[in-house]
Amino acid sequence: MSAVPASIDVIAIGNAIVDVMAPASEDDIARLGLAKGGMTLIDTDQAHALYQAMGPAREISGGSAANTLAGLAALGAKCAFIGQVADDQLGEVFAHDIRAGGIDFATPARGNDPATARCLIFVTPDGQRTMNTYLGASQYLPAAALDEATIASASALYLEGYLWDPEEPRRAMRRAIAAARSAGRQVAFTLSDAFVIARHGDDFRALIDQGEIDILFANEHELAALTGIDDFEAALAQLSPKVPTLVVTRSENGAHAVSGGEHVHVLAEPVAQVVDTTGAGDLFAAGFLFGHVRGRSLAECLRLGAICAAEVISHYGARPETDLAALVAAKLA
Amino acid sequence: MSAVPASIDVIAIGNAIVDVMAPASEDDIARLGLAKGGMTLIDTDQAHALYQAMGPAREISGGSAANTLAGLAALGAKCAFIGQVADDQLGEVFAHDIRAGGIDFATPARGNDPATARCLIFVTPDGQRTMNTYLGASQYLPAAALDEATIASASALYLEGYLWDPEEPRRAMRRAIAAARSAGRQVAFTLSDAFVIARHGDDFRALIDQGEIDILFANEHELAALTGIDDFEAALAQLSPKVPTLVVTRSENGAHAVSGGEHVHVLAEPVAQVVDTTGAGDLFAAGFLFGHVRGRSLAECLRLGAICAAEVISHYGARPETDLAALVAAKLA
Repeated sequence: MSAVPASIDVIAIGNAIVDVMAPASEDDIARLGLAKGGMTLIDTDQAHALYQAMGPAREISGGSAANTLAGLAALGAKCAFIGQVADDQLGEVFAHDIRAGGIDFATPARGNDPATARCLIFVTPDGQRTMNTYLGASQYLPAAALDEATIASASALYLEGYLWDPEEPRRAMRRAIAAARSAGRQVAFTLSDAFVIARHGDDFRALIDQGEIDILFANEHELAALTGIDDFEAALAQLSPKVPTLVVTRSENGAHAVSGGEHVHVLAEPVAQVVDTTGAGDLFAAGFLFGHVRGRSLAECLRLGAICAAEVISHYGARPETDLAALVAAKLA
Repeated sequence: MSAVPASIDVIAIGNAIVDVMAPASEDDIARLGLAKGGMTLIDTDQAHALYQAMGPAREISGGSAANTLAGLAALGAKCAFIGQVADDQLGEVFAHDIRAGGIDFATPARGNDPATARCLIFVTPDGQRTMNTYLGASQYLPAAALDEATIASASALYLEGYLWDPEEPRRAMRRAIAAARSAGRQVAFTLSDAFVIARHGDDFRALIDQGEIDILFANEHELAALTGIDDFEAALAQLSPKVPTLVVTRSENGAHAVSGGEHVHVLAEPVAQVVDTTGAGDLFAAGFLFGHVRGRSLAECLRLGAICAAEVISHYGARPETDLAALVAAKLA
């Protein structure tokens, strides 16, 4: 552990994305040939064509790790974000929203070509989201954007697997992990999506085997993809000895955490109506990490995750809209 | 009446605005010195300062007349919009959303300085919205942007009073009125806001006295401002003989219409929870105009207005989010 007390709870590195969200029918998903429920990377031309095919939309700041920080900050944690926007209107929107949430964000914008990342999200009546991401500026986050002193001052460094895909941010994340570890801080990592594991599973398994990851977040599909084991319990048993804390979410079936030989399961928090599942995993991670940096029990961390995930799926958009600190206080009272 | 059948139901000229909406407390409204419930025009510096003071927000296309068209199109009307965006990302957002709603929109973007208009909207827990509008590109709508043939082909021309304030669009609107009238079409006008009446009441009264307005929309405050009469019934009695159809909304107290000697009142449609009143008047106008162009009775037109207004105040944003045609069919069944 570090000799110096941490002055920040969580610093995260992630894609700086504005979500462009519209309701869609099952027919729309089929007609457009979209991978329902998944995340697909798209280029400029695809983004243009898909946007044209989309209904009237709304724009809400997103990005996986940024959403997690928004949740953490709403719970009362002190947070900082590192991510790359362009010098354009959507970049201003992203920067405004994250700062307005009380999160430090100092990464300078990098010109206006390519544009700020956006994620075209089609939300079906079942609440499922189908994401199509144009990474734009986000994939050019340079290692130089890291403030290693700030990373060293945070209890935990949180990284999203999505950002492992483009080359420059991957280098930046490796450097960030080294900076955090040499300062005796914890490294938390979310696997993000099966496609990232398909491309970078070897890197992730190596990081885990080398003991670089203290807290690993995955959903059940990512767990299966990473371990190559379809049986949930068997996959959990295979992976959990390799990471100090393993957290696996299972949508409506709740979530599991394994840490220090303890295995805890929590039920999903009831939701009156699932409106839009965008951000469910991100907000689960927010609740869990908040408990973790506050020294709560494993069961309490899971419950915090479940409460935060339930809030975010009850409305459009991947960032909390109610006072999470008050919600959590009421639920845990 | 025109000899040629109309090929469009409603063509509207209005501000092309993207709404930037965030929840705010009563304290925020007081601390920032905002005029609660009203609309205030702001310049670039004020927009910047106010945006910085705003919480995490979402962006949803707005603009009074554009919202009305979005409602009309959702009900099944054929519509066209004329309004000025800049060649920037928010301009793309506005153009996308209006076209995705099935509305013709052919006004070319005009460079990127000033930027596309935006309205910073603070929504208090009582559902009231406080609007601060940076008009940007919107106020430079040139008369040359009018397609007089298209105006002549629409059953009704709908104009927002807001756009009477800047000089260029005012000239454009006068020309549009002349084009519609010479083609034997109807002219509908919404007074928009008391501040517009304070500045341009003489123009509006002259238009009315000259018989240029066939359908006039106002809320009770605008009615009082225009007539100079505080008593509602007296104001209605004074103004109604001067316009073929007068429609006055009274928020939770419903709405009145006077036409051809008939005076009808409709109750407000019940709403489970008023989330955000942005767009209430715009969507009331949408429902009423839809009934009007479809030849419905005065009572039915009012009821359509009330149903559409109720839908839009039950969620964030000033454009409908549910299938209005299906909603209306169910309510009127």
